[in-house]
Amino acid sequence: MSLNPSRTIAELKELRALTADADGAQRVAWTDTWLQARDWFSGKLDGLPVEQHLDAAGNSWVTLPGDSEVSLVLGSHLDSVPNGGWLDGALGVMAGLEVMRRISDEFNGKPPITIRLVDWADEEGARFGRSLLGSSAFAGTHSLDADRVRKDKDGITLEEAVRRCGVEIDHMPDAAAEQENIAAYLELHIEQGPVLERIGKPLAVVLGTKGVERHSITFTGQEAHSGSTPMMDRKDALAPLAKLALEIYGIAGKHRDAVCTIGSVKTFPGIVTAVVGTCEATLDQRDLDGRVLAQMYGEAKAASEKFATEHGCTVEWARIWNIEPVPFHPKLLEFAEQAVTETTGAAIRLPSGPLHDAAEVARAGIPTVMLFVQSLKGISHNKIEDTLEPHLELAIQALDRLTDKAMTWIQETQIA
Amino acid sequence: MSLNPSRTIAELKELRALTADADGAQRVAWTDTWLQARDWFSGKLDGLPVEQHLDAAGNSWVTLPGDSEVSLVLGSHLDSVPNGGWLDGALGVMAGLEVMRRISDEFNGKPPITIRLVDWADEEGARFGRSLLGSSAFAGTHSLDADRVRKDKDGITLEEAVRRCGVEIDHMPDAAAEQENIAAYLELHIEQGPVLERIGKPLAVVLGTKGVERHSITFTGQEAHSGSTPMMDRKDALAPLAKLALEIYGIAGKHRDAVCTIGSVKTFPGIVTAVVGTCEATLDQRDLDGRVLAQMYGEAKAASEKFATEHGCTVEWARIWNIEPVPFHPKLLEFAEQAVTETTGAAIRLPSGPLHDAAEVARAGIPTVMLFVQSLKGISHNKIEDTLEPHLELAIQALDRLTDKAMTWIQETQIA
Repeated sequence: MSLNPSRTIAELKELRALTADADGAQRVAWTDTWLQARDWFSGKLDGLPVEQHLDAAGNSWVTLPGDSEVSLVLGSHLDSVPNGGWLDGALGVMAGLEVMRRISDEFNGKPPITIRLVDWADEEGARFGRSLLGSSAFAGTHSLDADRVRKDKDGITLEEAVRRCGVEIDHMPDAAAEQENIAAYLELHIEQGPVLERIGKPLAVVLGTKGVERHSITFTGQEAHSGSTPMMDRKDALAPLAKLALEIYGIAGKHRDAVCTIGSVKTFPGIVTAVVGTCEATLDQRDLDGRVLAQMYGEAKAASEKFATEHGCTVEWARIWNIEPVPFHPKLLEFAEQAVTETTGAAIRLPSGPLHDAAEVARAGIPTVMLFVQSLKGISHNKIEDTLEPHLELAIQALDRLTDKAMTWIQETQIA
Repeated sequence: MSLNPSRTIAELKELRALTADADGAQRVAWTDTWLQARDWFSGKLDGLPVEQHLDAAGNSWVTLPGDSEVSLVLGSHLDSVPNGGWLDGALGVMAGLEVMRRISDEFNGKPPITIRLVDWADEEGARFGRSLLGSSAFAGTHSLDADRVRKDKDGITLEEAVRRCGVEIDHMPDAAAEQENIAAYLELHIEQGPVLERIGKPLAVVLGTKGVERHSITFTGQEAHSGSTPMMDRKDALAPLAKLALEIYGIAGKHRDAVCTIGSVKTFPGIVTAVVGTCEATLDQRDLDGRVLAQMYGEAKAASEKFATEHGCTVEWARIWNIEPVPFHPKLLEFAEQAVTETTGAAIRLPSGPLHDAAEVARAGIPTVMLFVQSLKGISHNKIEDTLEPHLELAIQALDRLTDKAMTWIQETQIA
C-alpha cells in the first residue's frame, strides 16, 4: 500500500464533520469535542502495529517500533481555537499518520528505526491563554507554576480542566521522559499567512520560528473637555500612539521578514467629549534574527518616548511576554529543501511568524524542521481557513519524502 | 444690603459639604442628592419677596415680581455629573441669587422689571445621556419622544426617573410657557477650559456656544495573524485612524478657536496577536462659525477616505449628533464687555466649547449672554475642579454689573 494523500483529505473532512459546527472547528483542548476528536483519531490506528499512550502532559504518542529504538517523530496538534479551521494542526497529525501507514506497509510493520506520531496537547492555548502547553512540558520550558491557576471564562482553572482529562498538573513535567531516543522531529502545518499564495508557491521550507517581543505600552497625557480645550493646550495621549502606529511600518520595513503589530488600543476615558487622557496599546514584534528583534524593540521604545514628549505625555512599557528566535536544524532544512524541490520543482524558505510546537521541540535540543503549505487568503483561526486540495496532496507527498531522507540520515549518523 | 460675593462662596461651600463625598459632587439630576440640593436652595429664599415653582420640565423658577411683568432671567443648574466639582452650574445659580437679593434690597422688594432666577433641570445628562434636558424642553428644541425610553445603568427609564420627581414626560414641552415676558437671559459659568488661566485673566465674555459635528468613524481592513502577515500584505485598520488622529490637528489648526477631538478608539478583534481588522473611533468637531465647522467636517471626511485607501481599507461615517453654532446677542455682548472691563480693567471674548443651557435659551429667540470665570488647570467634571476665590468674587460682581445694564436696556427698549 503506497502513500494515499487523498485518504488524508477525506479523513480531515470526516474530522471536520465530527467536530465543527456552522461557526467552524470546536476542538478546543480539554473539552469534550477535543476528546471526541482524539477518540476518532485512535480509531484510525486499527490494524496498524502501533502502541498508543498519553504522556504526563496529555500529549498523545503513537509508536511504530523499529529495529532501533532511535526514533523519528512526526506530529502537530488536533486542538483548535473556537470557531477555527479544519486544517490548522489537524493536517500535520493526519499527514503524519498517512506517512506512518506507508512506512509500516513498506517495512512490513518493522522499519529500521522507530517512527512515532505525536498529537500535542493544547497548542492553541485558546481556553486558558497559554499556548504550546503540552509541547513546553515535553521540552522542559513550561511555566506550570504560573499557569495552574489560569481560569477559563467560566472560572474553571487549568488544573481542574486537565484533571478532567486524566492529567495531573504536578506531573506534567514528566512528559520530558518522552524525549528519550528521539533523533529528529518533523511537522507539516498550514502557513496561516499570505506569502505563498502571493508568490504562487504551494509549499515552503520553514527556517525556524521568529522570536517575539510582546509589550504593553501606556501613554499618559491629560483628560480634558473636548469643547473647551484648545488644540495647543492638549496633552492628547492618542497622538503619540498614532505616531507609533505609523512608525512601526518603518521600523519593521528595514528588515526582510520582520513584523510589528499594534493589535489593541484602548482609550480612557474613551468618550466622545473628552481628549484621551490615557491610551493603552499592545505591541507584538517578531523576527527570526535575535539582533533584528532587539533593534526593533529599541527603536520602538525610543520612538514612543520621543512622540510622548512631543505631545506633553509620558510613556511606560511593560513586557507581556517574549521568546527567542528558534532556528531549525541545518541538515533537516537541506532535506526539506530537497523534498519540496522534488515535489514541486522549486523550494523557497520562509520563517514562521506564528509559534508552533516544533519550536518547543527544537528548544529541547532535538533536530527539527517544518514544512508549510499555502493558506488561501492567508486566513486561519477562522471557519473560512482553507487550502487547495492539490496543494494538500503535494504537502503530504513532500512530508513523506522528507521523512525518508530523515530516516536515512538517522540510520547513517546515529546507528553505528 | 449690598452685593455680598463672599456670602455666595460660603453658600457654595455649604452646598458642597451637603452634597459631595470624598469623590466629589453627587448632585446628579433626578436623584435624592439633587432633590436635597434643591431643598437646601429653597431654604435660602426665606425672607425674600419671591414666588417659587417647578415648571412642567422640572426647571425651578424663582420670581421677584417687578413693576413690569417684562422679566430678566439669571440662571444655571444645580445638577452635577457624578464625582463632579463644586462650581459647575452651582456658581451661576448661587451668584444669580446674590444678585437677586441685591436688587430686591435696592428696590425695596419691587424692582422696575421682574427678575427671575432659574435652576435648569438636568443640564449634565449624566444619568441618561441627554444633556440640556430641562432647558431644551423650555426652548421647544427637545427630543422627548426619543429620550423617554433612555435608561440609566440600573435599567430605570428617564420617564420613570422624572415621574419620581413630580414631572410627567408628556407634559415637559409645556415648560415653553415660561418663555412669556422674558426679555433677556444671563448666565455665569466656570470656563471648564485652560485659556483664561494661560493668559492670566479672571473673566471673559462668552461670544456664543460653538456648533458641534459629532461622528462615529469605522475603518474596515482585514484581521490577520500578527506573526504570519508581512507588513506589505496588511490591511491594518488602525493605520488610517492613526493618520486621521494626527491630521485633525492640522484641520483644526487653520482656525483660531476650532477644536477636533478623537475621544474614543476601539480595535477589533483587539488582541495582541492580530492585525486590527476594524477600528471604530469618534470625532467631535466644534467651532463658533458654521462655515468653519462645515469645512472641518469635509476635510476630515476626505482625509479619512484618502488614508483608508492608502492602507487597503474602507471607511464609513455615521453622524452621532450635531448642533448649529449659537452666537449670543450683540447688545448683551457689549454690556458684558463693559461689565467685565469695569470689574477687571479689560475684557476678552471667548467662544464656549461646552454647551450650556444659555444656548437653548438663545435658540428660543431670547437675547442671551454668558460670562466665564477662570477654571484652575482647565479641569471640570472632577472633584479637583476649582477657581480662585478672588476670581469668584470678581465674577459675581461682573454678573451684578451686567444685570444692571441689561435691566436698564430692557426698561428703555421694551417698556414704552
